[in-house]
Amino acid sequence: MGLTAFDHLVVRVEDIDEGIATYRDKVGLELDRTDESEALGIKQAFFNLPGGGFIEVVAPTDPDSAVGRALRRGEGIHTVAFAVDDLAATCEAMKAGGAQLIGEGGPQVFVHPKSTHGVLLQLSEA
Amino acid sequence: MGLTAFDHLVVRVEDIDEGIATYRDKVGLELDRTDESEALGIKQAFFNLPGGGFIEVVAPTDPDSAVGRALRRGEGIHTVAFAVDDLAATCEAMKAGGAQLIGEGGPQVFVHPKSTHGVLLQLSEA
Repeated sequence: MGLTAFDHLVVRVEDIDEGIATYRDKVGLELDRTDESEALGIKQAFFNLPGGGFIEVVAPTDPDSAVGRALRRGEGIHTVAFAVDDLAATCEAMKAGGAQLIGEGGPQVFVHPKSTHGVLLQLSEA
Repeated sequence: MGLTAFDHLVVRVEDIDEGIATYRDKVGLELDRTDESEALGIKQAFFNLPGGGFIEVVAPTDPDSAVGRALRRGEGIHTVAFAVDDLAATCEAMKAGGAQLIGEGGPQVFVHPKSTHGVLLQLSEA
């Protein structure tokens, strides 16, 4: 039970092509693939890390999506996701410890930044 | 050469004891050790992840330290550090790609947030 390892970092940017160019040319990562989620209103670019885990760059296609709204506070880290052993038990333990969760029971569970001193933590079942 | 894997996440908080309580009780991590750096003007708490890497919670002892100044923008993620294969060659390649580095040649090298769409990336030689 609990967080076991880093899974991925999500960086929100205004323009997906600029974000891809930055993480490819300046940071030096290899672009693995791009995708688009109509449901989330975002374009995505995935950069795998050789040792495991990945960096995901996202840009909104809908300004009222969660990413679009967060961009009003600027570009930067959107979420950091950790692999979790036994998601349901981990959620129960976190709530017992006083954490506020977002999206519990759904495919993506987050810990509210109010519960982490400002970090939107994503929990990914391993 | 280049980024290979996640190394650690640094979260800045106002009060180290509150930060420790949060990451222990709400996030459910086990406190590994605490430390204090007079040179950096911070107190630190380290939470190891079972699968590798760690989360470091930091609070300033000096309000004019880098962490103290960053806290004026609020609590949250301070840096995210990735292990790097061949730090010197990676720095050269990043600069050739247009990245602005901070602290090159020293023990801690960072990529300026202007070069990463708002992420203070730390490079840790593996």
